[in-house]
Amino acid sequence: MSQQQRDALDQLLRDAPLDLGGDVAEQRVIFEEMMAAIPVPADVTTSAGSLGGIAVVNVEVAGADPEGVIFYLHGGAYAIGTAASSVGLASDLARRAGARLVTVDYRLAPEHPYPAAIDDAVAAYRGLLDSGVAASAIAIAGESAGAGLAAATLVALKHVGLPQPSGAVLMSPWVDLTLSGESISGKAGVDPALTPEGLRRRAVDYVAAGEQRAELVSPIFADLTGLPPLLIQAGSHEILLDDATRLAARAAAADVAVRLEVTPGVPHVFQAFAAMLDEGDTALTSAGEFLRDHLAGPRP
Amino acid sequence: MSQQQRDALDQLLRDAPLDLGGDVAEQRVIFEEMMAAIPVPADVTTSAGSLGGIAVVNVEVAGADPEGVIFYLHGGAYAIGTAASSVGLASDLARRAGARLVTVDYRLAPEHPYPAAIDDAVAAYRGLLDSGVAASAIAIAGESAGAGLAAATLVALKHVGLPQPSGAVLMSPWVDLTLSGESISGKAGVDPALTPEGLRRRAVDYVAAGEQRAELVSPIFADLTGLPPLLIQAGSHEILLDDATRLAARAAAADVAVRLEVTPGVPHVFQAFAAMLDEGDTALTSAGEFLRDHLAGPRP
Repeated sequence: MSQQQRDALDQLLRDAPLDLGGDVAEQRVIFEEMMAAIPVPADVTTSAGSLGGIAVVNVEVAGADPEGVIFYLHGGAYAIGTAASSVGLASDLARRAGARLVTVDYRLAPEHPYPAAIDDAVAAYRGLLDSGVAASAIAIAGESAGAGLAAATLVALKHVGLPQPSGAVLMSPWVDLTLSGESISGKAGVDPALTPEGLRRRAVDYVAAGEQRAELVSPIFADLTGLPPLLIQAGSHEILLDDATRLAARAAAADVAVRLEVTPGVPHVFQAFAAMLDEGDTALTSAGEFLRDHLAGPRP
Repeated sequence: MSQQQRDALDQLLRDAPLDLGGDVAEQRVIFEEMMAAIPVPADVTTSAGSLGGIAVVNVEVAGADPEGVIFYLHGGAYAIGTAASSVGLASDLARRAGARLVTVDYRLAPEHPYPAAIDDAVAAYRGLLDSGVAASAIAIAGESAGAGLAAATLVALKHVGLPQPSGAVLMSPWVDLTLSGESISGKAGVDPALTPEGLRRRAVDYVAAGEQRAELVSPIFADLTGLPPLLIQAGSHEILLDDATRLAARAAAADVAVRLEVTPGVPHVFQAFAAMLDEGDTALTSAGEFLRDHLAGPRP
């Protein structure tokens, strides 16, 4: 947990050309390059696949439990990122969880605004169930907008009558597209990766302003009753910190099992930098243990 | 995690004669009897002691790490409870943490209102340091008002310039004596142990109404910067749920390392019922692991 590591990551992100609020075509290219730089462990193999008509990337980890499946939704503010570019972080999670993983190529805004992403996530989840995997052997996970989409998917599963997975890992979730958290301004000075303006632009791409409070857009406003156990992780140096803490509070009030882990002094989705940041390594290990526990079924 | 266990505990608490808002003399007797019913493990020995002029009970666990010390503050709404009656729960925590423990007989209201409790906690902590124990080998823990007092003590340590301990375990903390959390009314129907009226009466005993927002009375309103890593646990069936979730959010915003664990469907200080409730056992094991990690020093 070294200050030097945190400073190095902070500088790296401040110097990075990524601007989530910038031109989508440009930023998609930059994001792919950044994510592709995350090393994929040698014991991981990937293959293209499809679930419920939605393209996915299958991620297999040597020696993993053949039963459990992590259903993964990548980040990128609903406009950027792909299943393929998520494999670095997702496979690191799968490896620590000892489970196989599918990462979903849901459609992106602005070409495909809400509800395309949620429709695709639900269709792929249904396809995974239809392939013979029990809901109790599935856990859902995601980072940033992908974690928000994961939370929205859990709510949507209630609407369509599909069973909940065994648990969810939400890394730096973006669950309030109205940007009403105090940290949106309070942490803007220390967040090296995200800006309120950038998120606001992407929120408009994804959904018209009037719909930003809809429960499948901003699941922080949804009825969270009946959701499976949640692990919510965030860094204290991100403007989305309050999305994490408020989601934890709202879920807890709805009688959901909640574990919230906030790591001080680290940025949005710091788990992606586990190779250079001890805090990322620790958080990802914790997430892996959480997934192992829940994919293994309820404790006696 | 059985519904039957949760129902049995709920009924037990609803049938119990304890009324934290009742007559202090009567309730002290009832509380002592209830707490004395928690079994003390056979590998635990206790002895009377003193730290900084404050009476404590020393709790030794066979085979424990001789270095680490848990500094424990019991619950009872600042008016009820003793170090001796806390030994059942405290020793169970110490045993799982593999550390020795001191539980503090701080003075109680209404005979000794604020700041007597905090003065005694700080004096005993100073006495522990003076006895040669390094702050890094101390963790603070408590339940209910004791967890609130623990949080207030951490803030007070900053004021008097004493070093912070290595971490804190706060079980169902009462950190807002103004009772401003939504759960105070929102969870009143499902809380089998606490009532808003009872807490309100005890808050008045401890401190005049005008002072209830003072940061050493209600540490949720304090500047929490510089506090050590916190593990905050609560049940979703308690009116103090929002004290836990808001403390987590406030501490996270102040760049404190925070882990929040909310267990659904269980009451205030459910850890005290670990012998009959799987959720209590799981939570107490988690708290013990947290203490082990932090008493062992920072990770490399």
